[in-house]
Amino acid sequence: MYTFTERMANWRNEIDSELSSFFTKKIGEKTDDFIRKVVELLGEFTLGGGKRVRPVLVIAGHDLFSPHDEKIVKASISMEISQSYFLIQDDVMDQSDLRRGKPSFHVAVTERLLSGLSHDKRLAENIAIVASDLAESYCHETLLSSGFPPDRLRAANYELSKVFEMTGEGQLLDLYSSINSEFAESDLMRTHLLKTANYTVSGPLKIGTILSGNISHINDLNYFGSLIGVAFQIQDDILGLYGSEKTIGKSPKTDMNEGKKTLLILKAMERSSDADRKFIASRLGKGSISDEDFERVKKIVSDTGSLDFSIKISRDLVERGKKYLDNVDGNVEIKSFLGDMADYLIKREN
Amino acid sequence: MYTFTERMANWRNEIDSELSSFFTKKIGEKTDDFIRKVVELLGEFTLGGGKRVRPVLVIAGHDLFSPHDEKIVKASISMEISQSYFLIQDDVMDQSDLRRGKPSFHVAVTERLLSGLSHDKRLAENIAIVASDLAESYCHETLLSSGFPPDRLRAANYELSKVFEMTGEGQLLDLYSSINSEFAESDLMRTHLLKTANYTVSGPLKIGTILSGNISHINDLNYFGSLIGVAFQIQDDILGLYGSEKTIGKSPKTDMNEGKKTLLILKAMERSSDADRKFIASRLGKGSISDEDFERVKKIVSDTGSLDFSIKISRDLVERGKKYLDNVDGNVEIKSFLGDMADYLIKREN
Repeated sequence: MYTFTERMANWRNEIDSELSSFFTKKIGEKTDDFIRKVVELLGEFTLGGGKRVRPVLVIAGHDLFSPHDEKIVKASISMEISQSYFLIQDDVMDQSDLRRGKPSFHVAVTERLLSGLSHDKRLAENIAIVASDLAESYCHETLLSSGFPPDRLRAANYELSKVFEMTGEGQLLDLYSSINSEFAESDLMRTHLLKTANYTVSGPLKIGTILSGNISHINDLNYFGSLIGVAFQIQDDILGLYGSEKTIGKSPKTDMNEGKKTLLILKAMERSSDADRKFIASRLGKGSISDEDFERVKKIVSDTGSLDFSIKISRDLVERGKKYLDNVDGNVEIKSFLGDMADYLIKREN
Repeated sequence: MYTFTERMANWRNEIDSELSSFFTKKIGEKTDDFIRKVVELLGEFTLGGGKRVRPVLVIAGHDLFSPHDEKIVKASISMEISQSYFLIQDDVMDQSDLRRGKPSFHVAVTERLLSGLSHDKRLAENIAIVASDLAESYCHETLLSSGFPPDRLRAANYELSKVFEMTGEGQLLDLYSSINSEFAESDLMRTHLLKTANYTVSGPLKIGTILSGNISHINDLNYFGSLIGVAFQIQDDILGLYGSEKTIGKSPKTDMNEGKKTLLILKAMERSSDADRKFIASRLGKGSISDEDFERVKKIVSDTGSLDFSIKISRDLVERGKKYLDNVDGNVEIKSFLGDMADYLIKREN
């Protein structure tokens, strides 16, 4: 029996190898010089980072009910390429220069493809948006050509389109939150469910399960995924405030500067003094926060107990999620792996 | 037997009715106020204009080989929703305020959803990009839930993802053309093939044909669609220069101001005097062209015979395309309709 770390490493290797084959083949097919360069950049971006949580969960959803095989690895990469689809767009929308400690995609386009050419800033962003569209088409292509029976592929691809729809809806709530002064904890949880939990955990698990041909436990897996997915996002927000640039790949000030209304911030504002609340409000989403002010925000979040609250909520969610996993009658090693995955998602440091 | 105009009108009615049902149902499912408003706007945008050429061709591709039914109408709307996906993005990329004589999507977001709220210009554009993502997910959803057998749906959706990939690749060539001083007629034809012909004609025809279950004539239909699709784009560019704002729904100066290297422009520059060539180059893509300069460009394009050349090429392409259609052993009324469609695409005035 593999440990969690061993299994993650094994599957990641299989996933990376499949991603690499896919992009090598795709690049080889491109005869137009400029298109080939964009696809090469997309391949580098996709292979260049990330924890592979989503494709790993596609595989786990399948392997719960059906023996591990090459087909599920082929199908799983659709949920890693989808990360490129969303991250490239996110960075254009947020005008972020860094992703995973490296240039974001549109910055890489400027540096690598447009260097020395006269152009306006929009051109690189437009190329990035179209590259994200290409990535999106590859998600469907890889899933549909994975070799499973057509009825399962139809159902899995339908699920994929629902995952993308919900992610888009969550993104809309997120965008709107920046100007919605009424944005409250319940809106935040709904955003987390749509944008993160479904996309990162329950969606991939469901797609894998559908491909296995046994969907009798899909509801329990959906609840498990939704709960630990929200916990994953809360941990992400904790790392976003208290992590280091080295581990999270971007400045920890980013969320504050962008005005992200996280559970940490909402709860701290609810519990803090009038002066502290006004202080946070005056710095949230205003960009270029100073070191001193940033430290004060972190201290308010800790002192009000908001940090402990987020940690507790994420642990509770994981415990509640695991109860649904208990109901699932599937491969015991994979069940144990998923339990460990739930813990990993709230303990990880990047 | 229906005339071309009658059949177009009948199918358009069926398509519009299906689009309307789809959006009514979708809007009814949305409980988040802001998400619902965005989907409503997307429904209005999709239903508010367009010739329905792509869904009509999906239906024609199917009805060539299989009796007309409700399923193919359901499937066909995926290729109209895809228009919203691409047009919304295009208008953000080009920073265009007008589409079909009405506000473009991101402008409608500003006017209708963000009115009175303090926000920066990017927010409306970001909401528009996410709305285009939602549209993209609906393309797959409508196709996959149309009720055809799973093997055909798998193959049709795979084709859809290839259509989106090729459209994206054509868009990359188009974006790159603005800074590529070597951009020549052969690059233009390749862009037209990828971005227009495949997306507008051969892709929809192939998807319909796959859904009919008879793919034995798919290659002839592909050639037919590619040839008349390029002709369609050439006519689009003629209307883009010589049409009126009323009929084309945007200023006829737009293509010149955006620096679009059309066949009209490339051929006129090739054939004109040094002075005229320099004049065109000095006005192409520089924005805000004056009425007087714009008239001079049009005169150069006519006087050099470039306009006649484009008209001739589009007619030749249609004639060559029709020869491939002759090879197709399908319903004679639908074949006749497709022949008329080819003529319509190069004779239309909007």
